Amino acid sequence: MSLLTGVDLDQAQRAADAAQDRLAARGVTLESLLERIGAFRVEIPSWGFGRGGTRFGRYEDGAEARTVQEKMHDAGLVHQLTGVTPTVACHFPWDGLTSEEWDETLRAIRAAGLRPGAVNSNSFSPRPGTMDERLKLGSLTNPFAEVREASVAHNLDCVGIMRHFGVKILSLWLHDGTNSPGQQSLYDQADFLDAALRTIHDALADDETLFIEYKLFEPGFYATAIADWGRAVDLAMRAGNRARVLVDMGHHAQGTNIEQIVALLVRMDRLGGFHFNDRKYADDDLAAGSIDPYQLFRVFLALVEADQRGLKPFEDVAFLVDQSHNVKNPVEEMIETVDNLQRAYVQALLVDASGLQAAREAGDPVLGDQLLRDAFFDLPADAYLKIWRHERGLSIDPLRAFREGGWEQRLRDERLSRTTEPGRPEAWA
Amino acid sequence: MSLLTGVDLDQAQRAADAAQDRLAARGVTLESLLERIGAFRVEIPSWGFGRGGTRFGRYEDGAEARTVQEKMHDAGLVHQLTGVTPTVACHFPWDGLTSEEWDETLRAIRAAGLRPGAVNSNSFSPRPGTMDERLKLGSLTNPFAEVREASVAHNLDCVGIMRHFGVKILSLWLHDGTNSPGQQSLYDQADFLDAALRTIHDALADDETLFIEYKLFEPGFYATAIADWGRAVDLAMRAGNRARVLVDMGHHAQGTNIEQIVALLVRMDRLGGFHFNDRKYADDDLAAGSIDPYQLFRVFLALVEADQRGLKPFEDVAFLVDQSHNVKNPVEEMIETVDNLQRAYVQALLVDASGLQAAREAGDPVLGDQLLRDAFFDLPADAYLKIWRHERGLSIDPLRAFREGGWEQRLRDERLSRTTEPGRPEAWA
Amino acid sequence: MSLLTGVDLDQAQRAADAAQDRLAARGVTLESLLERIGAFRVEIPSWGFGRGGTRFGRYEDGAEARTVQEKMHDAGLVHQLTGVTPTVACHFPWDGLTSEEWDETLRAIRAAGLRPGAVNSNSFSPRPGTMDERLKLGSLTNPFAEVREASVAHNLDCVGIMRHFGVKILSLWLHDGTNSPGQQSLYDQADFLDAALRTIHDALADDETLFIEYKLFEPGFYATAIADWGRAVDLAMRAGNRARVLVDMGHHAQGTNIEQIVALLVRMDRLGGFHFNDRKYADDDLAAGSIDPYQLFRVFLALVEADQRGLKPFEDVAFLVDQSHNVKNPVEEMIETVDNLQRAYVQALLVDASGLQAAREAGDPVLGDQLLRDAFFDLPADAYLKIWRHERGLSIDPLRAFREGGWEQRLRDERLSRTTEPGRPEAWA
Amino acid sequence: MSLLTGVDLDQAQRAADAAQDRLAARGVTLESLLERIGAFRVEIPSWGFGRGGTRFGRYEDGAEARTVQEKMHDAGLVHQLTGVTPTVACHFPWDGLTSEEWDETLRAIRAAGLRPGAVNSNSFSPRPGTMDERLKLGSLTNPFAEVREASVAHNLDCVGIMRHFGVKILSLWLHDGTNSPGQQSLYDQADFLDAALRTIHDALADDETLFIEYKLFEPGFYATAIADWGRAVDLAMRAGNRARVLVDMGHHAQGTNIEQIVALLVRMDRLGGFHFNDRKYADDDLAAGSIDPYQLFRVFLALVEADQRGLKPFEDVAFLVDQSHNVKNPVEEMIETVDNLQRAYVQALLVDASGLQAAREAGDPVLGDQLLRDAFFDLPADAYLKIWRHERGLSIDPLRAFREGGWEQRLRDERLSRTTEPGRPEAWA
Repeated sequence: MSLLTGVDLDQAQRAADAAQDRLAARGVTLESLLERIGAFRVEIPSWGFGRGGTRFGRYEDGAEARTVQEKMHDAGLVHQLTGVTPTVACHFPWDGLTSEEWDETLRAIRAAGLRPGAVNSNSFSPRPGTMDERLKLGSLTNPFAEVREASVAHNLDCVGIMRHFGVKILSLWLHDGTNSPGQQSLYDQADFLDAALRTIHDALADDETLFIEYKLFEPGFYATAIADWGRAVDLAMRAGNRARVLVDMGHHAQGTNIEQIVALLVRMDRLGGFHFNDRKYADDDLAAGSIDPYQLFRVFLALVEADQRGLKPFEDVAFLVDQSHNVKNPVEEMIETVDNLQRAYVQALLVDASGLQAAREAGDPVLGDQLLRDAFFDLPADAYLKIWRHERGLSIDPLRAFREGGWEQRLRDERLSRTTEPGRPEAWA
Repeated sequence: MSLLTGVDLDQAQRAADAAQDRLAARGVTLESLLERIGAFRVEIPSWGFGRGGTRFGRYEDGAEARTVQEKMHDAGLVHQLTGVTPTVACHFPWDGLTSEEWDETLRAIRAAGLRPGAVNSNSFSPRPGTMDERLKLGSLTNPFAEVREASVAHNLDCVGIMRHFGVKILSLWLHDGTNSPGQQSLYDQADFLDAALRTIHDALADDETLFIEYKLFEPGFYATAIADWGRAVDLAMRAGNRARVLVDMGHHAQGTNIEQIVALLVRMDRLGGFHFNDRKYADDDLAAGSIDPYQLFRVFLALVEADQRGLKPFEDVAFLVDQSHNVKNPVEEMIETVDNLQRAYVQALLVDASGLQAAREAGDPVLGDQLLRDAFFDLPADAYLKIWRHERGLSIDPLRAFREGGWEQRLRDERLSRTTEPGRPEAWA
Repeated sequence: MSLLTGVDLDQAQRAADAAQDRLAARGVTLESLLERIGAFRVEIPSWGFGRGGTRFGRYEDGAEARTVQEKMHDAGLVHQLTGVTPTVACHFPWDGLTSEEWDETLRAIRAAGLRPGAVNSNSFSPRPGTMDERLKLGSLTNPFAEVREASVAHNLDCVGIMRHFGVKILSLWLHDGTNSPGQQSLYDQADFLDAALRTIHDALADDETLFIEYKLFEPGFYATAIADWGRAVDLAMRAGNRARVLVDMGHHAQGTNIEQIVALLVRMDRLGGFHFNDRKYADDDLAAGSIDPYQLFRVFLALVEADQRGLKPFEDVAFLVDQSHNVKNPVEEMIETVDNLQRAYVQALLVDASGLQAAREAGDPVLGDQLLRDAFFDLPADAYLKIWRHERGLSIDPLRAFREGGWEQRLRDERLSRTTEPGRPEAWA
Repeated sequence: MSLLTGVDLDQAQRAADAAQDRLAARGVTLESLLERIGAFRVEIPSWGFGRGGTRFGRYEDGAEARTVQEKMHDAGLVHQLTGVTPTVACHFPWDGLTSEEWDETLRAIRAAGLRPGAVNSNSFSPRPGTMDERLKLGSLTNPFAEVREASVAHNLDCVGIMRHFGVKILSLWLHDGTNSPGQQSLYDQADFLDAALRTIHDALADDETLFIEYKLFEPGFYATAIADWGRAVDLAMRAGNRARVLVDMGHHAQGTNIEQIVALLVRMDRLGGFHFNDRKYADDDLAAGSIDPYQLFRVFLALVEADQRGLKPFEDVAFLVDQSHNVKNPVEEMIETVDNLQRAYVQALLVDASGLQAAREAGDPVLGDQLLRDAFFDLPADAYLKIWRHERGLSIDPLRAFREGGWEQRLRDERLSRTTEPGRPEAWA
């Protein structure tokens, strides 16, 4: 990890050597560790390669992707540089409105050396011409039956896309939520959603999965239709066996213990996967691990422990990124994110699991916390990542490789040459 | 409602008269409204009559109750003045350690003109001599099996007290939660709790109910064993049909929509009841409705709507108070609280339910919110309460009656005469 | 207050009559109360008449204003119906880019029967062609000197607009804030801002005022340049005597006591005014008083008390609305807002101020809180508003008047006939 | 850092060797780094060696200190093991009520090989016999003049203790705050506090300093008298040049950027120092760095940058610990805390400051964040600490040294032999 000049493989190897005895004391070999690193996959979203923004505007500089083709290109570049992002999640209709466009998207994905990932339906920005401004009142929970039906239909279309693409996951996040207590009965809101999700769920085959995402607030500010994991599980149980819950790191109230929710979902066999990002206050959609890396580590620790206890194989969890790249170059921020996720996973693997369990059972939190910090701080996680990258034939520093490759400038030049409005910020209001 | 001189029944009646046509327009008669007011019952807690405090100390002035007898006396006084608090919730072993003491407690309750209410077990302050300092690591989730067993046993003792007292509700709030990620596996914590609650639940008869209370944090600050309604429902479903969830108003993360949780619990048939109080930040345990009365109104509205939709009879909900009376005289703050709860209920009853539903179905939140404010602000809820009190033979202003009765001074004099340490603040550290 | 049929002036008068003695007991006459209501002014923002939205999109239905002319028309309509919104705040360059456009704006304001209000500069959506995408890194705190200078120049342009318009207030809210700790030194951020604000302040004349607005987060998510009132006051003191702080209700961390900040700003003689709105979690920009009306009441109470203590004349406070009308019709939500603000003010006026002060000095919070609730709930604030409106020749129910006037449909028809893209939701991504 | 067997000095030295070139690239030598580590001092509080608790109880196991002598002994032990905690902060009257007791305290401090640190007055748990239960209404802001005066007098007594002890810092945290809006005028609250602080401040000599601590809430839950840094600075400026602000990490609203407040206080020359701890939600008083170590690192980075910019010498900042040791052994948790603070400081020193500043000025947050993570994760901070400890003649692992020394059992045995109530939990209610 580092853009810094002077960071090289030799240092990483010497750091790894220095820690060799301690690794062995955990019953972990370097080989097994590198194998685990190599097996870890992160799915990246097509929509993460456009320029992100807030309601106050977004600021394009020309280098970011605008078209589907450009997005897939950039996703492929991330995979080429990191080696662990072979699939790209798509969002419809953003990534295609017609079957012709879907085919084009698929071709672009393959041309980038990738495979299609989860299909995300879009409740708030639907197929032009088929819906109306009443979407401001919600999609699947809309008070008007025809809007609910059109929203269900859009999701069923997405099931069709899944099969067209050969993917097994339908990922659903709703913008549904009310803005004041007078707007809708909480009972109607819940009833409408139960019914709609059951219909969507029942359209799936046995080997297909519905991911249900929850979020505390935004864009609804009074009563979000799926505000927390409790409601998401309730919906999943009502819908059926093919429904799982998706945890977005930024979608919780302040003070929520996310790793505990992860553990509870594991125990209910309802954990689907993650939308990774970080935040300081709300759904800030910052780079995963950029604000609170210790929390990210604890989430991975809960997953590693689930795997070790035989509750949920680590490889059955879907790891996706969902961020808004408002300031940094999207490709760079995605590489940074992948690096942060890999580090957190390696740190979790480096925990002395049996020592930790023994300390916990003995009522010894002092030792327990020391063991966590030992893996988080003192064992050389970054060194192992560099060694793995080197063995995989990758640059030990993907960000440096991106910069040394001159990619950003080249992409900006190419893309600005194709557009009529270079570099103009698109303000919201 | 008012200590103010100059507030009298005549004003209330004139205010009610002025609103008569609007009441009629809702299909509500004054008689039916007064009947509903008269049917509403609030259960008050014995522990609410002692002086509350924080970890920084509590400040007794001598007038507050210290003994079980004094607490029951004061609870009886609240019922005498308000007419709607006939039952008193007890907490064990605070309200008795031995069967002799339980009998004394029962006699004190009856002497005060009351009946016993829910039995609350105490995870954190157990029977002297039978438990040890390892409780700092939790009760039902303690890493040590013997502490878990002793904690289960205490709850089974409480089932015995229920039957001794002839009450049907066992109310369970745990102090269980860890203070750092190294302390306990989230999986062990959850497993231990599942098992313990099943045992306690299975000790209950078909007509007995287990209330499970959740709380975001405190006294555990990292991972609370039952941190939110999602986990509480999960536990209730694992435990069985006799388990219900108890909603304490102050136990949520900031920004949580409590009335929505109420509606979701109603739909799952898992709503047991409430611990009412108010707060600005955490579990501040202030008087219900003293900080955010509009939220309290919305909670009652969700219950009235549940009743109207046939989802949950209003009278099947348990309304309890759980507050910490740190500054105000406990009897006065309890009367204030009862008044606030009654007002919120009356306001919810005054909502034009069919008009509201029509506005909501028409996608007209402007009208919807107007209808809520109309009931909250413009219709004379306080006037109806005064009229009801007068018809019941109560003072129209119970607080004024308490003050005019000279109760506080009399109780202080009596109680200080019985103690050796008058008026000394008991600081914590 | 009410769209409900059956609400009429007679009821209001009877409610007022019923409370007459209690009003008198406060030393308040109906006449003085009506006079105060009539003197209260709310400034409404031109940008509040467009359709609001979130980063996930906004949903236009055709009835909302799109052009400057339409915005001013709708602002005029609100004043015509409520009688208390004679000035409209403008935002530049949204409300005009050239001096020709400024003149057109001024003509539109006057044509609507209004006067221009505060001039708001726009840090994030600047004059096309003069700034660049580096604004994503901030305006007055941008790391690049030429961006900082251009941002200062825009504010100086706005001073020119002020004089062109004959207004005395420059209102400044910055989008400046960083998204990660690596982005900018906290010291540079603060230094740049000090210098820029001093320059802007020094361009003002003695009778002109600079309003400095703070906000916890968004669109910056890691370190907002003016994150709280403490920094805003610091900046104001560094800038000079013509700087004041503007309090936006939605710009605080959860749990913040806003009325206390108001009181502290009053005591420092640094309170400029308000941006009113309401929220449940973040800067939700909902209608003022629609979520927590008791908080709104307490804010007005702090202002009424400041006036009574001779600390700050009530009429020297600027009352502005700043909301995002995402769901409701903007004109209707603005009328609702004005009504809520008026009610909160009347409730504050109805508090028995001397009784309250006596209770507080006696250490009697029970009585203190009763007196607050008495004014908030039991005295007929809405009735007084209706009576005042009637005496002013207004409809007692401005919302009903808007609806009965058929305005929404008429405006939608007119406006859709002028646009090529009727009713199409403009989604963000 | 580690209790783990198998961690030894050799590993630390090899890790340091592996990073040697990178250290050199920052212009940092190992010698200069070790010197800085050796110059860093943490002040520990006498009250942190008793068993902490919440309002629900605290659980003593006999090993924790109860008497002043025991507290000082344990503080000395921490210094003996860590080498960086030569001073102990005292709290009065907890650490002595009479001048005889103060002398005993001083002797105990010296016997433990320590010096006295900051004098903390106690607003909430005052000198027995001189104050009354009206303290529930506040100390310096109490509505009753005689309580205010007695509270001022207590602080003046503490000034006397300062001189008796030869220390220069009076540290003031108030429990003052109201629990409902009816309790006290926000203006009176502020006026009383201004006056009291001025009196206390004026009793100090030129070389003495008053630390003013702020806190969002608890034990007051509606309006805390000093709720945030803005009010603390306001008070400091009103009081005079000898007043500084003390930042307690757990006293902020969720989402607050603490390092930004630190930078702003530095710029105003009003930063006094810190009360270190960590939290997840409120004032949880957990071990510093145990929940969010990256935030702790950023705070130290703001201080290191202040030093580098010549704004505030690092050694002029007071670093104190203020935690509640509810679960872990207090001595162990204090050692853990000191270790975490040292690590965070070393990490901040390891940041490539000139590289970071260049990245920030170039608008390159990707590089900026990489540089922060490089110092936080990849450079071997723990190794440097071990090397320093070894050179100082300390155990490289103070916690292991404490355990291998058999201290906990020995202290428990000794202390239980001196008490009549061994191991009994003291429950609150």
